[in-house]
Order: sequence, then C-alpha cells, then structure tokens
Amino acid sequence: MFKKLVSIEEAKKILEKSLTLKPVGVEEVPLQQVFGRILAEDVEAEIDVPHFHRATVDGYAVKAEDTFRADEENPIKLKVSGRVLAGDKPTAIIKNGCAIEVATGAALPRGANAVVMVEYTSRENDSILVYKPVSLWENVMKIGSDIKKEEKVLRKGQVVSSREIGVLAALGKTRIKVYKKPKVAVLSTGAEVVEPGKPLEEGKIYDINTYTLSAAVREAYGEPVNMGIVVDKAEEIRNTLARALNIADIVITSGGVSVGPTDVVPKVLSSLGKPGVIVCGVASKPGKPTTIAIIDGKPVFSLPGHPTSSLLMFYIFARPVIAAMAGATLKEPVFVKAKTTEKVFSARGRRTFIMVKLTRDRSGKLLASPILPGVSGAITTLMKAEGFIEIKENQQFINSGEEVIVQLLDFNSSPLMERSR
Amino acid sequence: MFKKLVSIEEAKKILEKSLTLKPVGVEEVPLQQVFGRILAEDVEAEIDVPHFHRATVDGYAVKAEDTFRADEENPIKLKVSGRVLAGDKPTAIIKNGCAIEVATGAALPRGANAVVMVEYTSRENDSILVYKPVSLWENVMKIGSDIKKEEKVLRKGQVVSSREIGVLAALGKTRIKVYKKPKVAVLSTGAEVVEPGKPLEEGKIYDINTYTLSAAVREAYGEPVNMGIVVDKAEEIRNTLARALNIADIVITSGGVSVGPTDVVPKVLSSLGKPGVIVCGVASKPGKPTTIAIIDGKPVFSLPGHPTSSLLMFYIFARPVIAAMAGATLKEPVFVKAKTTEKVFSARGRRTFIMVKLTRDRSGKLLASPILPGVSGAITTLMKAEGFIEIKENQQFINSGEEVIVQLLDFNSSPLMERSR
Repeated sequence: MFKKLVSIEEAKKILEKSLTLKPVGVEEVPLQQVFGRILAEDVEAEIDVPHFHRATVDGYAVKAEDTFRADEENPIKLKVSGRVLAGDKPTAIIKNGCAIEVATGAALPRGANAVVMVEYTSRENDSILVYKPVSLWENVMKIGSDIKKEEKVLRKGQVVSSREIGVLAALGKTRIKVYKKPKVAVLSTGAEVVEPGKPLEEGKIYDINTYTLSAAVREAYGEPVNMGIVVDKAEEIRNTLARALNIADIVITSGGVSVGPTDVVPKVLSSLGKPGVIVCGVASKPGKPTTIAIIDGKPVFSLPGHPTSSLLMFYIFARPVIAAMAGATLKEPVFVKAKTTEKVFSARGRRTFIMVKLTRDRSGKLLASPILPGVSGAITTLMKAEGFIEIKENQQFINSGEEVIVQLLDFNSSPLMERSR
Repeated sequence: MFKKLVSIEEAKKILEKSLTLKPVGVEEVPLQQVFGRILAEDVEAEIDVPHFHRATVDGYAVKAEDTFRADEENPIKLKVSGRVLAGDKPTAIIKNGCAIEVATGAALPRGANAVVMVEYTSRENDSILVYKPVSLWENVMKIGSDIKKEEKVLRKGQVVSSREIGVLAALGKTRIKVYKKPKVAVLSTGAEVVEPGKPLEEGKIYDINTYTLSAAVREAYGEPVNMGIVVDKAEEIRNTLARALNIADIVITSGGVSVGPTDVVPKVLSSLGKPGVIVCGVASKPGKPTTIAIIDGKPVFSLPGHPTSSLLMFYIFARPVIAAMAGATLKEPVFVKAKTTEKVFSARGRRTFIMVKLTRDRSGKLLASPILPGVSGAITTLMKAEGFIEIKENQQFINSGEEVIVQLLDFNSSPLMERSR
C-alpha cells in the first residue's frame, strides 16, 4: 500500500493518464444570472447590431448629395418633411431637397444616407438652412456596423464579465448555455477537529480546511459541498466518502493521511472502487502525505491536514482538475523575479516550497523574505505569504541574495505591476 | 439649468463636497457566507492558536533534558507511560525518564517540552530507545505560536478570500460583522430601448446598460436592483426615480441625458429633492451629458446611453462612490506604458478617452492600437478594448509612435505581467 513517493511531475502525469478531463455538463441560465459563468457554446449573432441605420447625433436626416455645396456663406435650404424620435419606426421616405428631423438613436428614414448635426443648421418654419456639407453616412451607425448577423461574437470557455454581458444583451439573448459547476465535496478528518463555534477542549482545534478549501473551490469555478468533519474511523470515513462520491463530481479530504496510527483514508479509498489510489505520497515538502485516487471515474484528493500544506497541494493538483471540469481556462500563474533575503534549505530529495513575503529594496528591486517553516501548520503563514519559491529535488539550498522566481498566490491580484503615472 | 460643462476633476470635487462618503451599514453573516465580503471590524483573537502545545510529528513526548546525551551508539532508554492521539485531552504527566507516545497534532502531556520523532527511536515493550537528542520545544508548536490571544489578526476593510477565511475559522468565529452592500438601483431610459427577449422592431435596440451596469455594480461591491426600462416621459421617470430613491442607496440611470428634445432626466432630478443636480455635463468625450445629482443625501448618476460611454463614466464617477459606501478599498487602477500605433485626435476643450487594444512588438514592447471612435456607441468597442488612454483638454492629438500611459480596464487581471520562467 505505501509505495515510494513520486515527484510532483510524476504524480501529475499519473493523474492525467487516469482521468479524462472534460466539463461535467451544460445548463441554461437567464441573462440576469450569467455574470461570472463560463460560456458552453460559441455565441453567434442572430441579428445585426444595430439592426437599422441609426442616427448618432441630433439633427436632420438628409441625402448627403443635397448638402455637398453647402457652406457658411451659401447655406442650402431643405424642406423638413417629418420627424423621427429614438424608438420610432420611420414611415416617411426622404425625397431630394428634403430633410427629416431625427434625434440621437433614431432610425434613419428610407432614402436618407447621412445626418446633419443640428448645430450646423438653422430652422425657418418648415425648412432648414444647412451650413456645412455632410459626407455619405456621416453621423450614422450603419446596420450591422457594431455586430454583423452570423458573426461569432463570444467564444466557448469565456468567462462572462460586465463586458461580455453587454454583448449578450445587445443580441437580445435571454437564456445562455453555460457549463455546470462541478460539485466538489469537501470534508475534514481528524478526531482533533471541531466545528467553529463549538467549545474548544484541550487537544482540539477548529476546522480550518473546510472553509479555506471551499473558498478555493469557488475560486476554481467549482461548487463546494460541505460534508463536515469525520473522525478518523474507517467505518465513518467509508460511509462519508461513499456518500460524497454519490453526490459530487470531485471529493477533497484533508487530514488523516499521515503515517500515524489512525490514518485510514488511503486504505478506505482503495476499497471504494476502481482503480482506487493512484498516487500515495508525493516527494514534496510540505505535502508528502498527499494521496490521489480515482473511484469509478471521480477524482479524490486526500490532502494533508495542515492548512498551508493542504491549500498548496490543492493549488497544484486539484485546482486544474476542478477548473477543467468546470470548462474554465485558468489564468496562468503569475511569476516575478526577486532576491532572497535569507538562505533557505530544502528537504533532501523532495521538492521544497517556501512561502515568502515580497517587499522592494531602495532601488525598487523585489525582495523575497522566506516565512520560515518549523510551523508549517500555521494558518498565519498562508495569510502573510504573497507567493512561494521552489527548491528542486537535487538542490540543497538557495543562498541569501540569490535571484529566484516567485509564484504569486493571489491569482487575481497584480500587486507588483507598474503603477507609474 | 444647462450650465457650462465642468472638467472631470471639477466634477469629482463638487461630488466630494456634496456627499459624505461612508459605509451604508453593518450586518452579521455566518462563516459559510463571509467569502468575498468586507470586514466591518478588526478581528481580534479570543483564543491562542493552537491553544495547547501541539506535537508536529508522530513520536514520543519527552523532557528534552532526558535526551541530551543520546546518540546512535548510546541510545537512551525511556519508559513509555502512555499514549496521546490527536484530539485526546492528555491526562498523564511526564516524569523524568519517561516518554508518552504522541501522534501528529496531539496535545503534549504536562511536563513534556519536546517530541522525539518516531524515526529516531526503537520500541522495546514498555520502553523506547532514543538515538538522537531533541532540543527544547523541538517538534512542538507552542501555545499561541500561530496566533496569540488578543492579537489583531484581520483589519476592518479587508476582503475575505480563502486565506482570511482560514484565520476566522481557526479562531472559531461563526458570525462575522461585514459591511452591508449598498443597494444600487439601475434603470435605463429611452423609448428605443427594449428588454432582451422581446421582439425587436425597426428603430428599437435591446437594453444593454442595465446588464453591463448591474455587473459593474457587483464588481464595485454593490448590490444592483434592476428597475427596468423607463420611456423618456417626465411623469414615468419621476415616479421610477422616486421609487428608486426610496429603496436604494444610490441610483444609476443611463440614456435620456443628451440635449435632444425628450431628455428629461436632469429636469426631473432637480425637482425630486435637495440639492438636486450638482453636475450637469462634463467636458469629456465620451461622457459629455453625464449628470450627477444628490437627492436628500443619495447620489444619482445619470449616464449617457451609449454602452461604452456609460460604463466609462460609471468607472470614473460611480464606482468609487459605491465602493466607499460598501466599505471597500478599491484596488488602484493599473497603468502600463505603451507606444501608440496611430495618430489620435482629441475633442477640443474636452478630456478625450480613446479605447485601445494592447499587443507587443518583436522586441516585447507594448503597443496601444486605438479602437477608433465614430462608432462610440458600439458595444464591441468595449469588448475589444483592454484599456484606454487620455488626451488632456489642452492637447490636440497624440502622435503615432508616441509613448502613452494606458489604464487597464480589467481591474482584476494582470495580462501583461512578467510570465517568465
């Protein structure tokens, strides 16, 4: 059962081979609820936008040719034969020598091919004087000039933000096909773990991982399902895992995977379905006890109990899987170069991750200050860290002042970009 | 009523003077719902974390002094007088010459001050041999070493992400004081505007702004309230605005503010309460008809009808106000330097905003390609743009190849950061 540790890359390869990653499904949502969701199909325009020639200024719709010889000294007189407001269906047809009053946003009457701005006209009863020529289609937004009918305007896999939602509205879409969010069951194991709010006896700690991992699931476009805390008893863990596999697409456990006397998750996992455990221990610090199983096509990530370790392993292994099953393309992680402020050592033979804080020296160069381990379980380590550095398996240490690549933890922020102005 | 246009800076100053910006209120939410919310109070630890000395490895709790002379040749023999698992309340007290078996995460028994890793021991019935000394508190996470009781761990105004939520859970917090989201009524005006899904007759366009502005309100930590579409009739606009001011903290309208014959919003606004309209037209392109009112302490932003213009004016004027009333500190906008690919002209005397796409040239330098106006109403302009550049009021143009500062539109992304590796 307890095979030798595999490297992070090997573990990823095994996972890739054992699992066909595809979105869990598609559902239709109304326009009002599409914000933040991921499109499950390309969106094609079924109408032209605008779907009529549209005046972009207040003024007079004309035949441009009628104005070509106008100037301030020799205005051209046109007969005003009607008026179209925004929203009106134009019925009149413009004849030569005529103009029709239009408001911004109004549909151009048949026969017109330009709009003279009201500022370049003067009104005299039923006529206007035009003091400036307009060119063909001046001050007009032509049919389909924004979006052409049948144009592909949004692509499958795009996240709908305020900008994409405008395009969907412009096309009049009311129901939109988006990917279903994969359901991710999250459970914490351990006899020492207590739900926040309950009294805390000596020897007990509050459950942290259910909350951090559920939030991280949301950040990866999944829908967390809280399965609560399960004590380290084979029977109870077995029942809860079976229930989790029944209702969710992915299961994440934390705790209960060390080599201690009561660590039963890996054993239980292999009894639940095929192929069972595919990775049992990773050559990584932290994260060594990380166990990955596939149970009848559903991935189970069994992560360490320490909050920082479990969240780091979540980022490395579970996050890309959840996102793929959500149809999401994850932003690439963001890396910055920095100089270390301290010598840091690796765990021999294991990929070592060191959390760091970032600051700038006087010349503006980035400095990475290791948040030293020793308290790898510390929840505050994670809170203080802005990113992490990696020490390769065959490397013993990184010297103080050495240049390193720091991977930022906050996938959305860009705290270090140029803010010059 | 129609005073002279004011500059963007003047408009902001008038707004600041007329409005005392403060959060709209505080509410308590359960831990499960705190993700993404903004803390309304500093969070102080009411307990030590951990709140007992905690073993960080599987092994034997000992008095460190008993092991000082141990080495591989001369192991030290200790009597095993008990066992503590994670979650157990330790009852035994360690005496000199004794050890108590402990699991990772277990509470240290009274009298112990270090843990010997199981790997450096061998068991013989009721005794162990220790082959390596441990120093004081080795393999122990001491009481309060992660978070000290009474330590201030989170600050008022912080957004709760997966990292902050872990700290709240670690402290056992179940109800957390967060700022209420300001309610922002969003309404579109215009006889030409039709709800998506309805048939689209000639002269009509689908309502875009309700959806883009509602999404932008969410991005600014507000709660949008959809008031629907109101035709440009004084009576109906008056009633809807009165209702909006009654249920919301902020009101945003779009459309109906040009100088056209049916633009009634500014007039109605001034009749609704004091001081009424405070800004009526901004020297900006796009955005000129932007109108701002304060009605009995509540701000009303009356934005242009064109989707790109209204969203840009929203970003400039409404977003900071909504965020302040939500208790949120907005991320600073992100600026990047780029060279223009085309000469662009300003609207004389007005601050001119030009939307741009960003690419890189062969040497990796950023290029800003203007998405040319003419179709300023185009919804696709906004979709294609990654940022915008500004031309000052007294500047006539920006030359092709000139270096400009581009403000990125997507407040969360960092598409241009170093991604080296």
